Amino acid sequence: MTDSTRPVIALLTDFGLSDPYVGMMKAAILEIAPDAAIIDISHDIRPQALRQGAFLLAASLPYLPEPSVTVAVVDPGVGTDRRPLALRVDRRWLVGPDNGLFSRVWSAAPSGSRRAYLLDRPEYWRPIVSNTFHGRDIFAPVAAHLAAGADIVQIGSPILQIEPIPATGPEQAADGGWRLTIEHIDHFGNLITNLPVADLPGPSGSLTFTIAGESATGIGSNYDSSDRLIAVVGSLDYLEIAAPSGSAAEITRASIGDFIIMST
Amino acid sequence: MTDSTRPVIALLTDFGLSDPYVGMMKAAILEIAPDAAIIDISHDIRPQALRQGAFLLAASLPYLPEPSVTVAVVDPGVGTDRRPLALRVDRRWLVGPDNGLFSRVWSAAPSGSRRAYLLDRPEYWRPIVSNTFHGRDIFAPVAAHLAAGADIVQIGSPILQIEPIPATGPEQAADGGWRLTIEHIDHFGNLITNLPVADLPGPSGSLTFTIAGESATGIGSNYDSSDRLIAVVGSLDYLEIAAPSGSAAEITRASIGDFIIMST
Amino acid sequence: MTDSTRPVIALLTDFGLSDPYVGMMKAAILEIAPDAAIIDISHDIRPQALRQGAFLLAASLPYLPEPSVTVAVVDPGVGTDRRPLALRVDRRWLVGPDNGLFSRVWSAAPSGSRRAYLLDRPEYWRPIVSNTFHGRDIFAPVAAHLAAGADIVQIGSPILQIEPIPATGPEQAADGGWRLTIEHIDHFGNLITNLPVADLPGPSGSLTFTIAGESATGIGSNYDSSDRLIAVVGSLDYLEIAAPSGSAAEITRASIGDFIIMST
Repeated sequence: MTDSTRPVIALLTDFGLSDPYVGMMKAAILEIAPDAAIIDISHDIRPQALRQGAFLLAASLPYLPEPSVTVAVVDPGVGTDRRPLALRVDRRWLVGPDNGLFSRVWSAAPSGSRRAYLLDRPEYWRPIVSNTFHGRDIFAPVAAHLAAGADIVQIGSPILQIEPIPATGPEQAADGGWRLTIEHIDHFGNLITNLPVADLPGPSGSLTFTIAGESATGIGSNYDSSDRLIAVVGSLDYLEIAAPSGSAAEITRASIGDFIIMST
Repeated sequence: MTDSTRPVIALLTDFGLSDPYVGMMKAAILEIAPDAAIIDISHDIRPQALRQGAFLLAASLPYLPEPSVTVAVVDPGVGTDRRPLALRVDRRWLVGPDNGLFSRVWSAAPSGSRRAYLLDRPEYWRPIVSNTFHGRDIFAPVAAHLAAGADIVQIGSPILQIEPIPATGPEQAADGGWRLTIEHIDHFGNLITNLPVADLPGPSGSLTFTIAGESATGIGSNYDSSDRLIAVVGSLDYLEIAAPSGSAAEITRASIGDFIIMST
Repeated sequence: MTDSTRPVIALLTDFGLSDPYVGMMKAAILEIAPDAAIIDISHDIRPQALRQGAFLLAASLPYLPEPSVTVAVVDPGVGTDRRPLALRVDRRWLVGPDNGLFSRVWSAAPSGSRRAYLLDRPEYWRPIVSNTFHGRDIFAPVAAHLAAGADIVQIGSPILQIEPIPATGPEQAADGGWRLTIEHIDHFGNLITNLPVADLPGPSGSLTFTIAGESATGIGSNYDSSDRLIAVVGSLDYLEIAAPSGSAAEITRASIGDFIIMST
């Protein structure tokens, strides 16, 4: 990154915040890029939940600075032969394991705007690489080098494909409705679906969303409603189901991966 | 802020740390004020708990740097007509929704030291403002502009009053004692009351604090005691009830909003 | 610290992240060392758990930058006569209470590489020092002064010994095996023992680890296994017991302080 502004490195992992793991990654970054501003996107991806991680990564990316470098680590196969990866999408870099975590970002980017690289130059890693913590030993150092202006051709080799994960969009149901999947449940109990609001069929006033015997009709413009459940355009630009005076997760007892039926 | 030192932006929200929301606010800040040092006061205000947020904001403010900018977001009315606000109290700025969250800070400041502004200049916001996340789209950008030295007269318009919340101090009881309210329960289980230690009636040795059939007499000088419950001057300069070898919250099963009786 | 790079200050406490306490420490640091990069190692040491804190501090230290300053606060005796301390181990400073928290770091360092100082110069503290929060009022300011380049001889006085805690290594059992202690259980449910991998007896293939009627044989090279429980070299360079497709803590119902038997 050749901009004169302070480099930004964002982190998304399933490490939690209770252990020293995230702090160790930040220490590894600062040793290489002492001026970096490091921000945490989330460290509460459920352990080893690649699909949830891929979703939150893709949904957050448009809100991260350009240029920036994001380190994403949900990595059950650490220490096996799964590949270490760097991606570039427009002016944003992403670094992490090639296990599907980057598949949503990759497939959403026009092919002209994206590049993928295999990280195959250990001289840009920590001198000693553990078998259990590539976030600290490979991905954080590589991200720091990229943020500090290193050239990717020194750090990795171009590749053409990365690991996909199965299709994750809304599915058409037999009766003409759509089956949405809950990709994430947030701190407020909002149920965040896999329907990007840009893909909402119109007119939205007649849409009905059903889950666990509860339903919401139309799309509200904010959380101020006397309805028990509402559908709104959430902060991540995906449709979400919310409970204005409580938690939709508590009301519906829904879990990540559950379905919501959308009828037109 | 015209100081040459690095600007400090502090955040207090009810967003939790599991979701990308806080990270998105930090990204929005860094795009405008890349040199800012961002610190988290708390993101664990209970969802939509304005009174708790107002208390912790007012109690923390004296410990934040001057100058600094604090973004505070507990915002159940986001997207409605509640006003976006910036306050100045001495050399500290505060930015957030006008819904009572700033009422304690405002009422505690001498009128000569405080100013309030309606945020009415969208050119200082994100280009696209959602209906559900003004923390990212309005408050974080405005805070970053203030931290980077923008003039408030470009960003907002002076107003004279902000939204109050009901009185929140200790109340005198019929028998001459006082009824304190638990405003916050901390990680250690300490019960933090609404009695500022500067307002403690003397002599403190004869004060007795009663809750849930348990009591503490006098004010201890630290947590080193063999008593089951003690009263101490807490880190926020409010009286708190603590359990030296455990959790006062567990012993008393108290909740935020419960009363503690102080007898002289 | 005379390096031209941005100073790094790391924090390890039992304060949790829900309260304003950690933010107040960071504010106190930034008022003195505005350029500091502050990283959180962990704030989830169990309340007042000196042994767990001492373990995680010692295990994390090798992964922190040189130079750097670490503030560690697990401090049940705050406000009593326990001493405030600064340690230097090679090019890393540590600051906090003299209550055993630093004992593992201290005893692991060759005597030529370590120095200890009593913090006895209040002019380097906050002007008003509370009895309940020396993390904010003494340790954070002293760390910031050290990070900003102040000379330790201005801040403290040399001492020769610090407070120990009881021996914490593996113990030989009557039958020739070893009794390991679980020092920490991480977010993934991995059981992290007090056996440094450098001390593993060889050949490791025949080692068996037993806990709660479950056992693991040999030392795996990563988490990719069909075994129910495995032993691996963890990220902190201590032996840990993990469950490849779940949580070893859930499977064994183990707690910090429990024993694991290693037979050769």
